[in-house]
Amino acid sequence: MKKIGIADTTFARYDMYRSAVEELNAMGTGFTIERYTVPGIKDLAIACQKLMERGCDIVLALGMPGPEAIDKQCADQASRALLDVELKHSIHLLEVFVHEDEADNDRELGRLADGRAREHAVNAYDLLFRQERLQRMAGTGQREGHPDAEPIR
Amino acid sequence: MKKIGIADTTFARYDMYRSAVEELNAMGTGFTIERYTVPGIKDLAIACQKLMERGCDIVLALGMPGPEAIDKQCADQASRALLDVELKHSIHLLEVFVHEDEADNDRELGRLADGRAREHAVNAYDLLFRQERLQRMAGTGQREGHPDAEPIR
Amino acid sequence: MKKIGIADTTFARYDMYRSAVEELNAMGTGFTIERYTVPGIKDLAIACQKLMERGCDIVLALGMPGPEAIDKQCADQASRALLDVELKHSIHLLEVFVHEDEADNDRELGRLADGRAREHAVNAYDLLFRQERLQRMAGTGQREGHPDAEPIR
Amino acid sequence: MKKIGIADTTFARYDMYRSAVEELNAMGTGFTIERYTVPGIKDLAIACQKLMERGCDIVLALGMPGPEAIDKQCADQASRALLDVELKHSIHLLEVFVHEDEADNDRELGRLADGRAREHAVNAYDLLFRQERLQRMAGTGQREGHPDAEPIR
Amino acid sequence: MKKIGIADTTFARYDMYRSAVEELNAMGTGFTIERYTVPGIKDLAIACQKLMERGCDIVLALGMPGPEAIDKQCADQASRALLDVELKHSIHLLEVFVHEDEADNDRELGRLADGRAREHAVNAYDLLFRQERLQRMAGTGQREGHPDAEPIR
Repeated sequence: MKKIGIADTTFARYDMYRSAVEELNAMGTGFTIERYTVPGIKDLAIACQKLMERGCDIVLALGMPGPEAIDKQCADQASRALLDVELKHSIHLLEVFVHEDEADNDRELGRLADGRAREHAVNAYDLLFRQERLQRMAGTGQREGHPDAEPIR
Repeated sequence: MKKIGIADTTFARYDMYRSAVEELNAMGTGFTIERYTVPGIKDLAIACQKLMERGCDIVLALGMPGPEAIDKQCADQASRALLDVELKHSIHLLEVFVHEDEADNDRELGRLADGRAREHAVNAYDLLFRQERLQRMAGTGQREGHPDAEPIR
Repeated sequence: MKKIGIADTTFARYDMYRSAVEELNAMGTGFTIERYTVPGIKDLAIACQKLMERGCDIVLALGMPGPEAIDKQCADQASRALLDVELKHSIHLLEVFVHEDEADNDRELGRLADGRAREHAVNAYDLLFRQERLQRMAGTGQREGHPDAEPIR
Repeated sequence: MKKIGIADTTFARYDMYRSAVEELNAMGTGFTIERYTVPGIKDLAIACQKLMERGCDIVLALGMPGPEAIDKQCADQASRALLDVELKHSIHLLEVFVHEDEADNDRELGRLADGRAREHAVNAYDLLFRQERLQRMAGTGQREGHPDAEPIR
Repeated sequence: MKKIGIADTTFARYDMYRSAVEELNAMGTGFTIERYTVPGIKDLAIACQKLMERGCDIVLALGMPGPEAIDKQCADQASRALLDVELKHSIHLLEVFVHEDEADNDRELGRLADGRAREHAVNAYDLLFRQERLQRMAGTGQREGHPDAEPIR
């Protein structure tokens, strides 16, 4: 039995947790899910660390950074802290960030957040249970939330 | 009995410590507060670490970075050091920064500093005593000091 | 018998793994290759760490960052994490990144990705088996994927 | 008996060490001073670490970064390394940097360097011997080298 | 007997190693030199770490970053990794980087690379054998490769 941790924020404007959980449950069984909610993206690293300390085998960090320059700076700090936690514990941590300026309106933003959360949930499942699937897709231009890119032969 | 640490600076132009303490005391009981004042935002990380070494269960770092490009760079360094301390000790540390260029005048700046300190004091209380409240607010666009954002359904 | 680790991504649009393996096999013998595929460049650091934990004597990290500003920021985060892993384990890790805006079209991009993967495969071989060859080329303007630069006498 | 470490550089154009020492001696007694001079600001972090290894209870890092973009990048690297040393040893380290473009001419630059070194020397003394003085000044807009800012009530 | 480590790259266009060695030998005796050559500036940190692991008492990292924005980003990553290594081992590490856009033509670039390597070789010698010389030059505007700056009295 594997344990998948999901950290999310009250700052985000879309419930990406629900999308990730729905997708994970559609994938298969053999895992439980543990959640940790924090105020903002800068708190995601400690949330992920606490999930790892509680025995999670992989963690998803769901966040929606704002559109301003200062938001980009905060997202950068948050991302680096996530990488620090991942390497310190040597446990996969998938950063699932949706930047508010990636979409033109709320409807599109919601779709993007839903799609990215779902596709990274699949990535988490693959890393835990079927790494050979990732190898088969290596170098093929996979994208999460946006349409895949064209592979170059 | 929990212990809440609060680090603040002589550089800041508003007494955010008072706002945080007032709000915490209005929240409930079951905690004591310990303060550590340093010159500037770059000194907040060591102040927070010392508060953690003295047994704090959560720490608030209150600071007001200046408006120039070099101030943004300093704030970035300070933020990363705060994240380093948080992850090293695995204790929640809430960064409560108010950038001087977030407001058009001193009055507005004072209100913003007061509001943000109060709302993050509530976050600290929630993280310590009622995490389920944060889970209920996940993905709903909560903001600290500014009006909340619209959730996307 | 040495072990060479190769980490790559499903995000990349070109199969740089194949180029690296072909070139390594053309170099000589005395090594085995282990592969670890992850979704994106930010996952390469943990992949490399896992390869090191499995006994690799050197690791190649193959990635193709996108052309946007946010992609540059992600590549920067990924690069730093790769350096962190390398220094923590004190094992050589060669970052082989091809930025999508380094080429004008897909054909050129494919050639660049192929060439860079091959030339860094040679670097890995040299670091493992013939460091004196690197000393002889010191200060001579070697480039990977692009034509070499002119040495200044 | 406390020990105050002071690191400075041959790159700086003003003898900030003398200003800091004069001010410290004017403050009181109960401490000795140890100096460590290095070539440039990037060497200050290791100098401070060596001073800490020799038993310093607090350290001042005196430096004057140049005015170019590359100088800002170097100052940023130096600052982060100073923070790393401070947190690793959990000993206060005050960064006292004067950027060459903070002043319009050499005379003003000299005054600024002298004033900032002196005011941070007082900060070091306060952190060592009278932390309650810092608490009384919290949130009052203290500045080092420049005139203090207006507190917001 | 002291051991001086020198790390250099095949990417650089000038043989800075020769300049550093010539200058060190002109300084005096009492030391041996060990060299470690790597492909590019991002590999210098691990090279320096390996030199420290082999017993070096001080290390010089010689590199020539390219002129593009991405090169500046790589140089920044490389510099930070060098600082990490230096602080981890608490051994002086002098970064000797010559940016290609510091000179107008190859002849000037060669002179700059030669001069900077030589002046930092002297710094290494001073840090090892005569630290009092650095103290005498503190705050006097020393520059490496370029003419010294004017001290401010």
